[in-house]
Amino acid sequence: MSFTYHRTIHLQDTDAAGVVYFANVLCMCHEAYEASLEASDIHLKDFFTNPPVAFPVVHASVDFFRPMFCGDKLEVNLIPHKLGVNKFEISYEIMVENVLVAKAVTRHVCIDAVSRSKQDLSAEMIQWLETNRQDAEGAERRKLREIL
Amino acid sequence: MSFTYHRTIHLQDTDAAGVVYFANVLCMCHEAYEASLEASDIHLKDFFTNPPVAFPVVHASVDFFRPMFCGDKLEVNLIPHKLGVNKFEISYEIMVENVLVAKAVTRHVCIDAVSRSKQDLSAEMIQWLETNRQDAEGAERRKLREIL
Amino acid sequence: MSFTYHRTIHLQDTDAAGVVYFANVLCMCHEAYEASLEASDIHLKDFFTNPPVAFPVVHASVDFFRPMFCGDKLEVNLIPHKLGVNKFEISYEIMVENVLVAKAVTRHVCIDAVSRSKQDLSAEMIQWLETNRQDAEGAERRKLREIL
Amino acid sequence: MSFTYHRTIHLQDTDAAGVVYFANVLCMCHEAYEASLEASDIHLKDFFTNPPVAFPVVHASVDFFRPMFCGDKLEVNLIPHKLGVNKFEISYEIMVENVLVAKAVTRHVCIDAVSRSKQDLSAEMIQWLETNRQDAEGAERRKLREIL
Repeated sequence: MSFTYHRTIHLQDTDAAGVVYFANVLCMCHEAYEASLEASDIHLKDFFTNPPVAFPVVHASVDFFRPMFCGDKLEVNLIPHKLGVNKFEISYEIMVENVLVAKAVTRHVCIDAVSRSKQDLSAEMIQWLETNRQDAEGAERRKLREIL
Repeated sequence: MSFTYHRTIHLQDTDAAGVVYFANVLCMCHEAYEASLEASDIHLKDFFTNPPVAFPVVHASVDFFRPMFCGDKLEVNLIPHKLGVNKFEISYEIMVENVLVAKAVTRHVCIDAVSRSKQDLSAEMIQWLETNRQDAEGAERRKLREIL
Repeated sequence: MSFTYHRTIHLQDTDAAGVVYFANVLCMCHEAYEASLEASDIHLKDFFTNPPVAFPVVHASVDFFRPMFCGDKLEVNLIPHKLGVNKFEISYEIMVENVLVAKAVTRHVCIDAVSRSKQDLSAEMIQWLETNRQDAEGAERRKLREIL
Repeated sequence: MSFTYHRTIHLQDTDAAGVVYFANVLCMCHEAYEASLEASDIHLKDFFTNPPVAFPVVHASVDFFRPMFCGDKLEVNLIPHKLGVNKFEISYEIMVENVLVAKAVTRHVCIDAVSRSKQDLSAEMIQWLETNRQDAEGAERRKLREIL
C-alpha cells in the first residue's frame, strides 16, 4: 500500500472565497511527507532542524480539480521516485470521499546544509525511497487485480 | 474526560529560530476547538462558511513555558466556559510528553453574521458547552481521586 | 514596466531549516497579484469575498534557484497572459538584489462563483490583463535596447 | 512619533468566515516588530536565524474590536516597554482608516539561544527600546497638545 496521510481541513486553511487557499494544499502535501518520514523511524526534529544534510524543495507544482472546504476529510497518497544520485520527486494524490480533488509534485535535492553543495542521497533516504516505492507498487498491483 | 486533540508539529509551524512560531500555537488551539465541535456532530463547513450565526474570537491570549520543535507530539486539552447569554471562553492546555508547554485562552461572542450584532448562544452551542464542561469536570474529579 | 511588488521576508515565512518554507513563495506571488489588481483600481474585498465571478487557481508551480532568508528584500515581477476566453496565467520572477531566486506560475479560470461553471473573463479582468501585458512588453523592449 | 508599520490585508490572511483569521493579527504585529528592528539597523537574518542571543515571545494577547477584510489598509503602531533586566513588552494598536480595530501585546525574554537560560538584554536591544519609547512618548505629547 502507498503511504496515506489523513487530514481534516481547518478553518485556517481556507480564505474569504470560502475554499482552501491554493498554496496551503502544498503544505498538506509536505505534512504527508513528514508523516511518511516518521513512519520510517526518521526523527523529524533532527531531520529538519539544522541537520548536516538537507533535502530542500527545488520544484513544486499542484493541479486543482475541485474546491476543498472547511471540515473536508482529505486522504493524501504519496509516491516517491528516485531521480538520480542526489535527487528525488514525490507525487501526491489528494482525495476527498474517494474523488481526486488535487494532484501535486515536489522535487528535492540532497545538499550539504552548510556549503549548500549537492551530495549523494543518504542511506536513510535511499531506504525511505525504496520502502515507499515498493509499497506504492504493491498498491498499484492490488488495484489492477481488483479490476481484472 | 476533557476533550483532547492530538497534533504533530509540522515543519511549517516552525521558524528560522528553530522552534514553533508563537502565533501558530493559537492556530493549533483553534484546530482543537474545530475537532471538538466535530466530535459533537457539528458540521464544520456549515458552521464556519457563511453561516447565519457566527462565534468570532474577540480575545485570545497564550503563555509559553517551553519551546516546541518539529515532530513534537502535542496534546491539546480544551475546556469551554459559558460567560453569559452570548459569550463563552475556551481554556487550552498544551502538553508534550505530559509536560505543560503552553496555555491559551480564546473568548468568543455569538453574533448575527450579517448584521454583526450580538445574539444569544444557539441551542447547539449551549449543548456543546455543557457536554465539554461536564467532560472536563469528570476529568478533574478523576484526577483528584487519584491524588487522594 | 512590468508590475513589481516589493516584499521583505518575515520570520513567519521561514522554517526550522533557516530558510523560507517553499509553499510560502506562492503566497508572496499571490500577494503580488493582489497588489497589481489594486493598482488597476479593483476593489480587493469585493473581488475575493463572496463575489458573483471568481478566478480560482487551477494550477500553480514554482522553481527555486537560491534559498531566501529572513529580512531578504524581494522584488516580484508579474506578467499575466490571456490563455483563452475564460483562462489566464501569471508568470512571476522573484529577485533578491537583482538575482533571480525563484520563478512561479499560477493559472486561473473564470467561474460563476455560485454554480462554479466556467464563464468568459469579465471586462474588468480583460482590462487588467491588457494593462499588465503592455507594461511587461514595454519593459522587455527597454531591456533589449539597453543590451543592443 | 511611535513606529508605524503599514500593511494591506492579503487573501491568505482571511478565512472562510470572510474576515481575517484571528491568529494572523499577531503575525502582523510581529511583522511590525521586525520592521522596527530593521529601522534601527538591526540585521534581521542575524537577529532571528541561529543567533547567540534570542528574544522569544513568552506571552501574547490580542483583543478584536472590528472585523478586518481583504484589502483593508492596516496601520500598526508599536510601543515597547522595558520590564526588567531581561524582559520587555510591546504594545500594538491596529488601526484601519483611523479606527482602532484591534490591540495586542507580546512579551519577550532575553535568553542565551543555546542553553536557553535568561540573560540581560543586549546593548542593541536596550538602544532599540529607548529609541522607540522616546518616539512613542513624543507622539503622545503631540497628541495631548492637539487636544489641549
